[in-house]
Amino acid sequence: MPSQTQFGLMNRDELGAELDRQRENYARLRDEKLVLDLTRGKPSPEQLDLSAALLTLPGENYRAADGLDTRNYGGVTGLPELRAIFGELLGIPVSNLLAGGNASLEIMHDLIVFSLLHGNSDSAGPWAGETVKFLCPSPGYDRHFAITQSFGIEMIPVPILPDGPDMAVVTELVASDPAIRGMWAVPAYSNPTGAVYSEEVTRGLVSMPTAAPDFRIFWDNAYAVHPLVGETVPALDVLGMAAEAGNPNRPYVFASTSKITFAGAGVAFFGASADNLAWYQRNIAKKTIGPDKVNQLRHAQFFGDADGVRAHMEKHREILAPKFALVLQILEDRLGASKVASWTDPKGGYFISLDVLDGTARRVIELAKEAGIALTAAGSAFPYGADPDDRNIRIAPSFPSSGELEVAMDGVATCVLYAAAESLLTR
Amino acid sequence: MPSQTQFGLMNRDELGAELDRQRENYARLRDEKLVLDLTRGKPSPEQLDLSAALLTLPGENYRAADGLDTRNYGGVTGLPELRAIFGELLGIPVSNLLAGGNASLEIMHDLIVFSLLHGNSDSAGPWAGETVKFLCPSPGYDRHFAITQSFGIEMIPVPILPDGPDMAVVTELVASDPAIRGMWAVPAYSNPTGAVYSEEVTRGLVSMPTAAPDFRIFWDNAYAVHPLVGETVPALDVLGMAAEAGNPNRPYVFASTSKITFAGAGVAFFGASADNLAWYQRNIAKKTIGPDKVNQLRHAQFFGDADGVRAHMEKHREILAPKFALVLQILEDRLGASKVASWTDPKGGYFISLDVLDGTARRVIELAKEAGIALTAAGSAFPYGADPDDRNIRIAPSFPSSGELEVAMDGVATCVLYAAAESLLTR
Repeated sequence: MPSQTQFGLMNRDELGAELDRQRENYARLRDEKLVLDLTRGKPSPEQLDLSAALLTLPGENYRAADGLDTRNYGGVTGLPELRAIFGELLGIPVSNLLAGGNASLEIMHDLIVFSLLHGNSDSAGPWAGETVKFLCPSPGYDRHFAITQSFGIEMIPVPILPDGPDMAVVTELVASDPAIRGMWAVPAYSNPTGAVYSEEVTRGLVSMPTAAPDFRIFWDNAYAVHPLVGETVPALDVLGMAAEAGNPNRPYVFASTSKITFAGAGVAFFGASADNLAWYQRNIAKKTIGPDKVNQLRHAQFFGDADGVRAHMEKHREILAPKFALVLQILEDRLGASKVASWTDPKGGYFISLDVLDGTARRVIELAKEAGIALTAAGSAFPYGADPDDRNIRIAPSFPSSGELEVAMDGVATCVLYAAAESLLTR
Repeated sequence: MPSQTQFGLMNRDELGAELDRQRENYARLRDEKLVLDLTRGKPSPEQLDLSAALLTLPGENYRAADGLDTRNYGGVTGLPELRAIFGELLGIPVSNLLAGGNASLEIMHDLIVFSLLHGNSDSAGPWAGETVKFLCPSPGYDRHFAITQSFGIEMIPVPILPDGPDMAVVTELVASDPAIRGMWAVPAYSNPTGAVYSEEVTRGLVSMPTAAPDFRIFWDNAYAVHPLVGETVPALDVLGMAAEAGNPNRPYVFASTSKITFAGAGVAFFGASADNLAWYQRNIAKKTIGPDKVNQLRHAQFFGDADGVRAHMEKHREILAPKFALVLQILEDRLGASKVASWTDPKGGYFISLDVLDGTARRVIELAKEAGIALTAAGSAFPYGADPDDRNIRIAPSFPSSGELEVAMDGVATCVLYAAAESLLTR
C-alpha cells in the first residue's frame, strides 16, 4: 500500500493517520514471519552455477603455460597467464600484477600489517607507535574500515560524491596532516553508493601533494568488470597516471574473482609499482611459499582470455540486473511520493544505497529485524559504525531470489514509512 | 672412490695424498657439469601424482556434509568433515581444530603478527615495542626462523636432542627470562634432524614454569603422518597435556596437507584451546571472509576418512623410503671409514641432517655449488643463518629421481672429503 502524499506536506492529523496505516501494514508484515536476508553482497547460487566448470578443472593438465608444475611449491607471483587476463581487464602490465590467494581483503590487511611493523617502501620507519590516520570516503565498505579500526588507525570520513570522494576535502586534509598515511577507495561502482571515480578525480588523487611521503591509496577495484547497465566503465590506468604524476608508489590496486567465479574459492590480484611489489614480495615470502597455483590454473583454463571474462560477466548481469530493477521499482512505487527517502541507481556493482529520513535508519533496521528481514547493521558503511545522520541503509539485492527480494523490499518500505511517520510526529 | 682410512689417524703425508685424490675426484665431478638440487623438501612429481584425483574434484557435488554451499563466502572455521579427519590423526577434537588456506606457515606468521600488534589472549598488551625472544631448537626449520627474524624477535638457539630440545636449557631459560614469549617446535620427525619429541619432553614443555604469562609453543606437526620406517609415532595430545598441566593456552598446533596432497594447493590446520581460537578468529575475521572451502571439500572427498590418509601416506612412503636408504648407503660407503662426518637416520619426515668436519660446511656447500649441486645455504638450519660449528648440511632427498640423487650424493661426499682433507692440512 504505497503512500501517495509527501510526508513533509502533511499536517499532524494526516501524519497520525499515516502512522496508523503503516502500523497496520507493519503488523501484517510481522504476521508473515519472514526469514529474509539483505545484508551481504553474496552471489546467488544461480550465479555460482555459471562457474560450474571450475569444479572439475584443471583435469589432467596441471602444468602452467611455461611448463611449471602448479601442484608443487613456489611461484610466489602467481601464474603469468592468469595475470595476463586480468592485467588486460584492469589496464595493468603483467609485471605489475600479482595473483594470490582467495581474498584481496587479505592482501590489504597484510599491506597494513607490514606497514605497521616495517613501514612501507617510502616510510622512514614502522608505522606502529605513531599516530596513523586513513581517509575513508563514506558511506564505504565496512570490511575496509574494520581493518583500519582493528589496528587503531584513526579513520577520517570524507563525503563520497557520484564521481569519487570530495576532492576539496581530500586535498586539504592530505596536504596538511602528515599522519594521514592512507586512503580507502572503491573506484568503480563503489560499495555502497555505486560512485564511479572520474578520470579527473583519479588524476587529482595520484598527483595531489601529501604531507606524508609514504601516503598510499588502497584502490580496491572489486567491481571492475561488474556493470549492471551499459558498458563496463574502462578501468582507469591509475598506476600509469601515478607514475606520470611522479608518485608511482602511491596506488595499491586490488581485484578478485570473488564475484566473478566462486566467492569463497576465487583468486585475488594485487597491482602496484615495481618498488611496491619488491617490498611486498620480500615481506610475503616470510609467510608463504606461494599461492594456490592449481586454482589459478583452473581459472585461466576456465576463462581462456579477457573476452572470456567479459562474456562470463554478461551472464552475471542477466541475473543481477532484473533484481536491481525490481528493488528500484519497489522503492519508487512505495516510497517515491512520500519523499522520505532517496536511493542510488547504480550502473554496476552489488549494492543500492538507501537514505531514509534523517534519524530513522537505526529504527528502520530494528523494525525490519523484528519482522524477520535482516539488513546490514545501522551505520555499517561508516567508520566506527557511526552514521552522523542515521540515515544510510545498504541494500544487497544479489543473493535472494526475485520472489524473496520482492517480499523483503516491500517489507523494508513499510518499515521506512512507519519509522518516518513516527519520527515526524515526535518532532 | 671411498676413503678407507680414518682421516684423524693420518699423518700429514697421508693427508696430502688424500687431498690429491679428492682433488682429482672433484675435478672429474666438475667436468660432469651437473645441474642437481637437494635444497628444499619438495615432493617429487611421482608423489604429487598420488593425488591426481584432486584435479577433477569436487565434481558436481559442491555441498559440505551439513549442506553448506562451499562455493560461496563464509565458514571461517573450515569444513567440519575435513577437520574431523585430521582431528583424528592429530588427536585434536574437531572443535579445537580449524582448517584454513594452503599454508600453515601463514597461520604461524599471522599469530606472531597479531601478538605483536595486539598481544595474545594472555598478554597484557602488544608485543611490539617490547623485547621479545623465541627459543629455537637448532638445527631447525629455516622458514620458522625467518619469520621471527623478520620482526626483530631475538632468537635463542637451544640444542636439539633425539627426543626433543635440551630441556635442562629450555626450562632454565623460560623460568628466568620474561622476554621469552615463544618457542618453535617440530615434534615429529623434526626438520632437519628427525628428532621425535618424547612424551616426557612434551609434558615438560607444557608444564614448565615460564616467567612470561603469555608464553606460546609453536607446535608445527608438519610430519605427523609421514613415517619412513615402522609405524607413525602417535601424535601426542599436546593440547590435552597442556590443559592438564594448567596451561591450556600454551600450545599452538599446526599441520597441513602440503606433503600429503599438493605442496602448493593443500589445506593447513590450526589447533588450539578455545581461548586461543576465539582470539585468533576475532583477528582473522578482519582479513578473510573464509578459507577456500571448495578445496577443503575436495580433500575431504579424496580422503574419505583418517584411514584414507594413512593408506595414502603408505604410498608416499613406498616412494620416499628407498630414496632415504640410497642417501644413507652412499654416505656410509663414501664417508663411513673416514670419520669426518656423521648423519641422522630419520624414521620419518623429509630430511637427513649431515654434520661434516667442524669448520667445513660452508666450504662443502661452495664446492658442491661450483660442481652444479645445489645444497641449502650454509647455516640455514640455525637462527640468523649462524651455524656455530660450521658443520651442518640439510639433505632433502625427496624431489630428485633416484638416479639424480645417487649422482648428487656421490658428488656431495667427494666435496665433504675434499674439504675435510684441505681443512685438516691447514690446522
